[in-house]
Amino acid sequence: MSSSTLSVINTLKQPTRWEWVEQALAHLNIILLDHSHCERKAAGVALNLMFRYPSNTQLVRQLTAIAREELEHFELVNQWLERLGIPLAPLSAPPYGGGLAALVRRNEPERLLDSLLVSGLIEARSHERLGLLATHCPDRELAEFYRSLMASEARHYGVYWVLADTYFERNVVKARLEELAIQESELLATLHSEPRIHS
Amino acid sequence: MSSSTLSVINTLKQPTRWEWVEQALAHLNIILLDHSHCERKAAGVALNLMFRYPSNTQLVRQLTAIAREELEHFELVNQWLERLGIPLAPLSAPPYGGGLAALVRRNEPERLLDSLLVSGLIEARSHERLGLLATHCPDRELAEFYRSLMASEARHYGVYWVLADTYFERNVVKARLEELAIQESELLATLHSEPRIHS
Ligand SMILES: [Fe+2]
Ligand SMILES: [Fe+2]
Ligand SMILES: [Fe+2]
Ligand SMILES: [Fe+2]
Repeated sequence: MSSSTLSVINTLKQPTRWEWVEQALAHLNIILLDHSHCERKAAGVALNLMFRYPSNTQLVRQLTAIAREELEHFELVNQWLERLGIPLAPLSAPPYGGGLAALVRRNEPERLLDSLLVSGLIEARSHERLGLLATHCPDRELAEFYRSLMASEARHYGVYWVLADTYFERNVVKARLEELAIQESELLATLHSEPRIHS
Repeated sequence: MSSSTLSVINTLKQPTRWEWVEQALAHLNIILLDHSHCERKAAGVALNLMFRYPSNTQLVRQLTAIAREELEHFELVNQWLERLGIPLAPLSAPPYGGGLAALVRRNEPERLLDSLLVSGLIEARSHERLGLLATHCPDRELAEFYRSLMASEARHYGVYWVLADTYFERNVVKARLEELAIQESELLATLHSEPRIHS
């Protein structure tokens, strides 16, 4: 396990419980479709931040790279959907994303800090869950695909953390990340009835 | 001149007048900064359409490719800004984008058709204006850069046209494009006081 993987997993307050793995493995087609939506949303989040902070050079540069990678992931997941004959379709979002968005404070500069940390936590959780799918998915090729995406999501977590650390005092970042990480785990404490990457 | 370039230029009802070229050449730094915003906005437009029509497989596939390319252009333009020591900064938008957005009908399926055709017209105009910069910019390296981006914008126009043609009857597409193209040229009939790619 690489040190970046360890630091990502240490950020998450609670590991994913086994019942999520069971739910996901029982509905791999829906998980794959939801994963497609997640990658598109991840690109959208990065792009939205670039629109909101167009003068923050580091942020713009790093998030351009993330948005490009998320679109590449989106394309790759969609190729899997096509290969498995799963048509593109909308899916209801689980409460996770909205719950995290509600934690973002409205005023600057807190809004920027919270936006970066919430995005980082989502990346960290995605990294953890893609790792679980990589380990437990019975289709070896699909498992390999999940494994190939994991490292990027850990890196994305790192980018969001470094950006927070660029624009804010480290002790402020750490304290707020601690608070948000507790809430992030709480949002996943009850398994959502619909199988999703973040159910 | 390639046939795709010819078809793009034929779409535009009025060519750009010389006063725009003079204005742009007199303010190349602002034009470059605005160009950066244009590329980010172009990526945003493609991504927004993918969010709005998540089940339209052709649209999602083609616009994923466009969004990726626009982000690459955005990165390239930002490298030029950095090289010239121009800091990233917000810029007021010219009336062009808002004027075109106001022409998009609110109800489906007209909204989809108009969104595709308006996006296509913006690409066609970008293609034309980058071509003018490529021809008239006194800095040969910068002129070469503009030339390198022109072909993509012509191709993007083509993608939006083909998508419109995929989802709508050809005669409906042609008639609406004709109407929108007239309005697009009218929006540029009076030079905007601030130098912009679409002033
Ligand atoms: Fe991703
Ligand atoms: Fe990511
Ligand atoms: Fe572009
Ligand atoms: Fe374009």
